[in-house]
Amino acid sequence: MTSERVLKLTLEYDGGAYQGWQYQPDVTTLQGEIEARLARILGASHRIHGAGRTDAGVHARGQVAHFHTTHPISVQVLQRALNATLPRDIGVRAVEEVGAGFHARKQAQSKQYAYQILNRETRSVFLERYAWHITHVLDWSAMERVCGILLGEHDFSAFRASDCVAKNPVRRIDRCAIVEGNEGLYRFEIEGSGFLKHMVRTLVGTLVDVGRGKQSPESFEAIMACRDRRQAGRTAPARGLWLEWVAYGGATHALVDE
Amino acid sequence: MTSERVLKLTLEYDGGAYQGWQYQPDVTTLQGEIEARLARILGASHRIHGAGRTDAGVHARGQVAHFHTTHPISVQVLQRALNATLPRDIGVRAVEEVGAGFHARKQAQSKQYAYQILNRETRSVFLERYAWHITHVLDWSAMERVCGILLGEHDFSAFRASDCVAKNPVRRIDRCAIVEGNEGLYRFEIEGSGFLKHMVRTLVGTLVDVGRGKQSPESFEAIMACRDRRQAGRTAPARGLWLEWVAYGGATHALVDE
Repeated sequence: MTSERVLKLTLEYDGGAYQGWQYQPDVTTLQGEIEARLARILGASHRIHGAGRTDAGVHARGQVAHFHTTHPISVQVLQRALNATLPRDIGVRAVEEVGAGFHARKQAQSKQYAYQILNRETRSVFLERYAWHITHVLDWSAMERVCGILLGEHDFSAFRASDCVAKNPVRRIDRCAIVEGNEGLYRFEIEGSGFLKHMVRTLVGTLVDVGRGKQSPESFEAIMACRDRRQAGRTAPARGLWLEWVAYGGATHALVDE
Repeated sequence: MTSERVLKLTLEYDGGAYQGWQYQPDVTTLQGEIEARLARILGASHRIHGAGRTDAGVHARGQVAHFHTTHPISVQVLQRALNATLPRDIGVRAVEEVGAGFHARKQAQSKQYAYQILNRETRSVFLERYAWHITHVLDWSAMERVCGILLGEHDFSAFRASDCVAKNPVRRIDRCAIVEGNEGLYRFEIEGSGFLKHMVRTLVGTLVDVGRGKQSPESFEAIMACRDRRQAGRTAPARGLWLEWVAYGGATHALVDE
């Protein structure tokens, strides 16, 4: 009898060339690319389960997925084989054997997303595909006040996609901050128990309305309270969004390569 | 009578798609792309002069070029027009009107190059095109000792391309350091009066031989003293090399956008 193993993959990818995480026939997706390589390496098809479905164009530094297999391949050999055969914009940062009950989505305790905004006059060659370039002057201190409003448990119905299928629109935000980098780069970082479809991008679109003076921190709070998507701002472009990490019980947040 | 003006361009580019800086017919080069856009914007061809000729595949955060024109265009309008029409992997960080005697190459007082090495087992999606990935364990303290050896004036004949045409192979190095970043990324930073063709890449190739134990800091010094290119290491890949900045009399080193 061959025993079944559960393998956990920690992945990074530049989402620019993909129609999102989720497998779809006849379309290039991250799940589809990884499953195709796994099938070739392991000699049989395996369904992988991601911690979350990143949208088309969204990047990841620490997406997590798992799959079940009876194949005896070592985690080191599998990681090397995947990194040797995957497209260069998808990388496997770690492969670990985990307990039989592990589930990348169901057991995720918290996640961090980051959204990068380049706020200056001149575009950047190196951030072109990785940040939302906004030339308007933004009121970053008003935007920081919104971060405080987001903390805790809230009904995020106003900030989810119209086709979002989650039954419960309540999510818990544990940390929310704006981190200023060099030369006009700002990172909006948000950690929480989970996120609804388009939630981070719609929060960012509305946050930018606050930064431009079209909304205030107070009207932002009222938009959240009214639970009506039509009151919120635009969905910010996918290219600025990064899934930074997914944490499980006892797992450390900071993901450091060997 | 229209008076002649000298305009200075500060440029950034991802060199991956270009056959280097220098104009060549029927080949895509940085100078060629910029001159083509200038001709369209100003209605007449203009020859630009770069501070140095970066090789095919080399990147820049702060290349400098100048050109002469009698066109009355404002520096702001020219910068916007260039950024709107140049390919997305070339950007104009600044346009300034400078004195009649300004020459980007002849008046450069110092330059900084950086060479990025990713020293770890696993490749990186986001550094793939911007660093040399080396999986061997490197002795970074031995490599740091080489940095000390490089300071001051030296004949760099051992570290230049066989077709390098510079008459004088002596160059002055003012600063040389290895800066450790996150997750196995190291930056070799070198500043000096000027650099011979392939000099930084050949220094890095030989430095990596020291890191791998094939050479020692002492034998590195002997290679430099023998002035024979055949004694030095390989030319490191172009993708890890960055022209960081070019400094002129009184100019600040740190390049900060508007």
